[in-house]
Amino acid sequence: MTITITAFERSPDGGKGLARDTRVRWALEEVGKPYEVRLVSFRAMKEPAHLALHPFGQIPTYEEGDLALFETGAIVFHIGERYAGLLPADANARARAISWMFAALNTVEPPILELATAKLLESDKHWSKERLPLVEARVRDRLKQLSDRLGDADWLDGGFSAGDLMMVSVLLRLKPSGLLHGFPNLSGYVARGEARPAYKRAFEAQAAVANGQPGAG
Amino acid sequence: MTITITAFERSPDGGKGLARDTRVRWALEEVGKPYEVRLVSFRAMKEPAHLALHPFGQIPTYEEGDLALFETGAIVFHIGERYAGLLPADANARARAISWMFAALNTVEPPILELATAKLLESDKHWSKERLPLVEARVRDRLKQLSDRLGDADWLDGGFSAGDLMMVSVLLRLKPSGLLHGFPNLSGYVARGEARPAYKRAFEAQAAVANGQPGAG
Repeated sequence: MTITITAFERSPDGGKGLARDTRVRWALEEVGKPYEVRLVSFRAMKEPAHLALHPFGQIPTYEEGDLALFETGAIVFHIGERYAGLLPADANARARAISWMFAALNTVEPPILELATAKLLESDKHWSKERLPLVEARVRDRLKQLSDRLGDADWLDGGFSAGDLMMVSVLLRLKPSGLLHGFPNLSGYVARGEARPAYKRAFEAQAAVANGQPGAG
Repeated sequence: MTITITAFERSPDGGKGLARDTRVRWALEEVGKPYEVRLVSFRAMKEPAHLALHPFGQIPTYEEGDLALFETGAIVFHIGERYAGLLPADANARARAISWMFAALNTVEPPILELATAKLLESDKHWSKERLPLVEARVRDRLKQLSDRLGDADWLDGGFSAGDLMMVSVLLRLKPSGLLHGFPNLSGYVARGEARPAYKRAFEAQAAVANGQPGAG
């Protein structure tokens, strides 16, 4: 059955790989499943046809036969559950990998999203300069805890898993901020993620859209 | 095997049910599994023994035999996967219920957490009064989309699922703000969640801790 995902027709980051379709592309590359991409304009994202697929009018979505999913975490989990390569076979190790997926999305990403919001939507406000250090401190608190846990391990819990895919993807958002520099083990962790052949293929596929060469992955 | 979860020794909300152990208690009540509770002080939460269980020094955690989990979403998912009552049997419906779990935690909760942060940590800042309406508007945008999708249905996708448990739990955070009043169908949705016997038992169990009667659920 063909897998079809959606992505921005014009990614706001111009192909830096921060749009969430990159996470789904990466997961599909890790498990070796080909996929089609349907590009969606900002206008179409808010129209009924897309809202039927994604109630919050975002990308990515995932279609496979009569299954339609939204929400990156759920899509990556679904791919991990259906195909080998992202979740350990051992039940307890699998549950722990899922813990890291949720931790990436619900504990580490929220302060990072808040930082992005502060920079993108509130940079023109008179409080911006004074408030930004507070938001950055909250991000740093989380990074410190994550760095302490990772220690000198390659991945968060044994071998690479969907938990690492999600955590590296979340941390990649911080690259422009320089906040990762204070945590060399996290910088190394992100670099290991980026060095994976599956990530590279995913990154190149999304960059090709920004460069005017959309198409299947 | 005994299930043991952790909860605040003294919940910051004084037993209003907003601490995340309530979500796990609710899930366990829905599937009819008894559980033990270990209360943790704020000091103990940041000490090595608890950090070994929860790298971000939070509650709840979940222990069952040799499995130890952290992160509420992962714990609720694990309970739903292992015991009947929270996830549909049909594979596609199950994947969609999981989509709603992630949507609750990664799309709807982040702006709500930002609002909580603005009120709890930045209320004494000179920008607070001017900034709060911006944050509230971002929450309202999400609520509007969720309200549009829910329509006049009882639950988000067919029968009650772990997706509803998580979404109702996230929306409950908004009760004091009054923001739900603008969306009568969401208020009704939250009330339906609160009316479930399993939720009531979970709520009473966490309130008992605040009232000085800790113990098993």
